[in-house]
Amino acid sequence: MQSPWRLVSGGVTAPQGFAASGIAAGLKPSGKPDLALLLAPEAAVCAGAFTTSVVRAACVDLCHERLEFTGGRARTVLINAGQANACTGDRGLIDSQRATQALADQLGLDSEAVLICSTGVIGVPIPMPTLLSGLDPLVSSLSANGGEAAATAILTTDLVDKQVALEAELGGRRICIGGMAKGSGMIHPDMATMLAFFSCDAGVEPSTWKAMVGRAVQRSFNAITVDGDTSTNDTVLAFAAGDVLDSVHHAALEQGLTEAMQHLAQSIARDGEGATCLIEVQVEGADDEPSALKVARTICGSSLVKTAVHGRDPNWGRIVAAAGRSGVPFDPEQVALWIGSHQLMQGGQPLPFDRDGASAVLREPTVQIRLRLGAGPSQGRAWGCDLSDQYVRINADYTT
Amino acid sequence: MQSPWRLVSGGVTAPQGFAASGIAAGLKPSGKPDLALLLAPEAAVCAGAFTTSVVRAACVDLCHERLEFTGGRARTVLINAGQANACTGDRGLIDSQRATQALADQLGLDSEAVLICSTGVIGVPIPMPTLLSGLDPLVSSLSANGGEAAATAILTTDLVDKQVALEAELGGRRICIGGMAKGSGMIHPDMATMLAFFSCDAGVEPSTWKAMVGRAVQRSFNAITVDGDTSTNDTVLAFAAGDVLDSVHHAALEQGLTEAMQHLAQSIARDGEGATCLIEVQVEGADDEPSALKVARTICGSSLVKTAVHGRDPNWGRIVAAAGRSGVPFDPEQVALWIGSHQLMQGGQPLPFDRDGASAVLREPTVQIRLRLGAGPSQGRAWGCDLSDQYVRINADYTT
Repeated sequence: MQSPWRLVSGGVTAPQGFAASGIAAGLKPSGKPDLALLLAPEAAVCAGAFTTSVVRAACVDLCHERLEFTGGRARTVLINAGQANACTGDRGLIDSQRATQALADQLGLDSEAVLICSTGVIGVPIPMPTLLSGLDPLVSSLSANGGEAAATAILTTDLVDKQVALEAELGGRRICIGGMAKGSGMIHPDMATMLAFFSCDAGVEPSTWKAMVGRAVQRSFNAITVDGDTSTNDTVLAFAAGDVLDSVHHAALEQGLTEAMQHLAQSIARDGEGATCLIEVQVEGADDEPSALKVARTICGSSLVKTAVHGRDPNWGRIVAAAGRSGVPFDPEQVALWIGSHQLMQGGQPLPFDRDGASAVLREPTVQIRLRLGAGPSQGRAWGCDLSDQYVRINADYTT
Repeated sequence: MQSPWRLVSGGVTAPQGFAASGIAAGLKPSGKPDLALLLAPEAAVCAGAFTTSVVRAACVDLCHERLEFTGGRARTVLINAGQANACTGDRGLIDSQRATQALADQLGLDSEAVLICSTGVIGVPIPMPTLLSGLDPLVSSLSANGGEAAATAILTTDLVDKQVALEAELGGRRICIGGMAKGSGMIHPDMATMLAFFSCDAGVEPSTWKAMVGRAVQRSFNAITVDGDTSTNDTVLAFAAGDVLDSVHHAALEQGLTEAMQHLAQSIARDGEGATCLIEVQVEGADDEPSALKVARTICGSSLVKTAVHGRDPNWGRIVAAAGRSGVPFDPEQVALWIGSHQLMQGGQPLPFDRDGASAVLREPTVQIRLRLGAGPSQGRAWGCDLSDQYVRINADYTT
C-alpha cells in the first residue's frame, strides 16, 4: 500500500499552531545553543515514552508523573543541553521543579502543563541561574518557524541535526506531523541521551494517542541500537492538538507517526559514533511481531555483525549465530538469509553466492539484511550502524 | 574462609586415571594440532552445559542427547578443531555419529559413552576421511601426561592454551580437579566457540555432579562476556570417576570445581580478541545471586564501560548507567561504587575522588570494579575485557 504521507519542511513547527525556539543560554561551555522550547496549542494531548533504566534522571520522573497526573495533557516542554541532571539526588528534582514553575509563570500555565528534558553530563547539576535567566529570551523568540532553532539547541555531540515533517490529506484536511531528535553521538562520555519530540495538528483523545505513540515507538526508537547502552534520560514526547480527526483516519495517522519516528530513529543510528553506514535488518516469517523485532535488534546489536559490515565482509555465519542467541525460538533448518538481493542461505544451509556482489552491498550507505525465520505471519525491522575503530577511539580517548 | 584447594600442574590429566592426547590430523589448513581426546576411567559420570542458542551444532545435539540417554554417564570426548559442524544440515549429525562410532569401536566402548565437540568455521563440513584416519594415532598417543597436548589441539585462534589443575585433601584423600578450555579469540570469523573440559578423581552420583556442574558454570563461564555473542557450539563437559567421596565433602568439592572453572573462564576473558586487561566486576548488596550476576555481567558487557577501561578513564557514570539498564530493580539512591580501592559514589551521588589514582587502577592487568546495590544479602562476580581498536580491526579486516 502506498503511504499517503510525504516529506515537507518545517520540522517540529510544521504542524499548525505549534511554536518553538532555541537559544544559547550559556549552559554549554562551548557557547553553542543549549536551551530549547516547544509550545503546543491549547488543549493539546501529550504521550511519552521513557528510559527503562532504573537509574533515571529527575526530569524523566517529573515528565512521567505529570503526564500520569493530567491524564496525558501538556502544553510545553523545555529542553536543556549540557547537564543530564541524572545522579544529582534531591537537588535534581528540585531544580526540575523550579525550572518548570518559572516557565509556567512566564507562559501563564499550570506547572503540570510544563515538562522538562535534560541531556548532557551525568552527575553535574544544572547551573540554575544560567537556565532561569535564559527563559525570558527563549520565550520571546518563540516562533512558528522555530523548528530548526529548537532542533539545533537540543543537540549535544550529534554531528547533524535531526528533523522530520510529514503531511497527508486525511478526510479532506491537510494533517501534519513534525519531529526533532537528538541522538547517540557519544563522543563525550555520558552524553548518550536519545531525546525526540513530535507535534501533530490533529485532535486525538489522550488514550488513543498514547496507544499510537507506544506502538510507533516500538517500531522505531525501540528498534534501533548503537551500542546497546540505554541512557538515564531517554525520552520521547509527542503532542497532538487541533480539530478532532475522525477515527476512520486513525490508522493512517498512526502510519504517519510511525514513519516520522522511523525517519528520526534511522537518523540517530546513522549518526552513531564512528558509524560509516546504516544497517537495516528485516526479519520475516516470525510467529509474532515482538519476536521478529527481538531477532532483528539482536542482529543489529551484535559486535561481530557490526564489525563484519564495517569490514565489508558478507559473513552470514555471524548473522545466523546472532539470531540464534536472541532468545526467540525458531527452527534453524527453515532459515533463509539475504544481503541486499544476494541470497546466502536456504533451509538453514549455506548457498554458493557472489561474494564480490554481496561485499559491494555492504559498501552502500544503507546495508540491507533480510532473514526469514520460518513460515510465520509476522515481520519486524531494526536499525543500527557498523562498529568502527573510530568508535573505540572516540569513547576511549576522552580523558587522555 | 581459606580455600583448601591449591594449584598444581598436569591440566586435565592431573586427576588419577584420566588420559588424553592431541595430534595434528590435518583438519586445520595451518597444519597445527587439531584433534584431541580425553578418556575417563570406567564408571565415569559426566555432566554438560551447552549453548542456549537455537542455532546449535550437530555435536551439541549429540552430546546433549547421549547424556540424557545414559543418565549422565560417558567415558570419552573427541574434540576436532577447524570445522564447527554447525549449519551443516543432516550431514552434520551423520558425521558426528560416524566419528563417535569409529572411536567407540577403536576403544571397545558403547557409542553412547563417546561424545564429540567441534570448533572452527561454521557451515563447512568436517573432512571425514582426514578425521577418521586420525583416530588411530590419536588413541595410540593417549597418555596420563597428555593434558598439555590435548589443551593445545583444541585451540583455534586463542593466543595461549588454557589449563588448570587443583588439588585438596578431603577426608584424608588427595582429590584432584583438572581442566582445559579454548576461548573466544575470534580472530577468524565464526571461530567464537568456547569449549571447556574437566576431570575429577572423586566418585560422585550423576545427579549430584550435574547439579554441582550447573552451579559452577553459572558462577564462571556464564559470568564472562567478551562481546556478547553466544556461539553455536559452546560446551562444557565435566567427568568424575574414582572412589566415592563422602557427601560431607561435597561443598568443598564444589568449591574446587567452581575455582577451576573460574580460573579458565578468566583466562578466556583475558585472551579475548584485542584485550589488554581482565575486568572483574563484583556486585554486592543484591536481593539474590542471579540478580547480582546479571548486573555484573551487564556492566562487563557494556561497550561504553569497556572502551572507558581501555582509555583508562574512571568514568563512573557509564558503570551506573549499565547497571540501571540490566533489568534488575534497585534503588539508585543506595548505590555505592569503587574502582580498586577508590570510592567514586555513595548514596547514589558522586564523591570527589583521586582521578589519577583511579586511572592508575585501570592500568593494572586485572581491573577491579565493585558496585553495592543496596542492603541485600547476595553478591556475584563477572569477568570481561576491555574493547580496543584492535578488536575492531581483527574482526573487520578478515577478508580485506
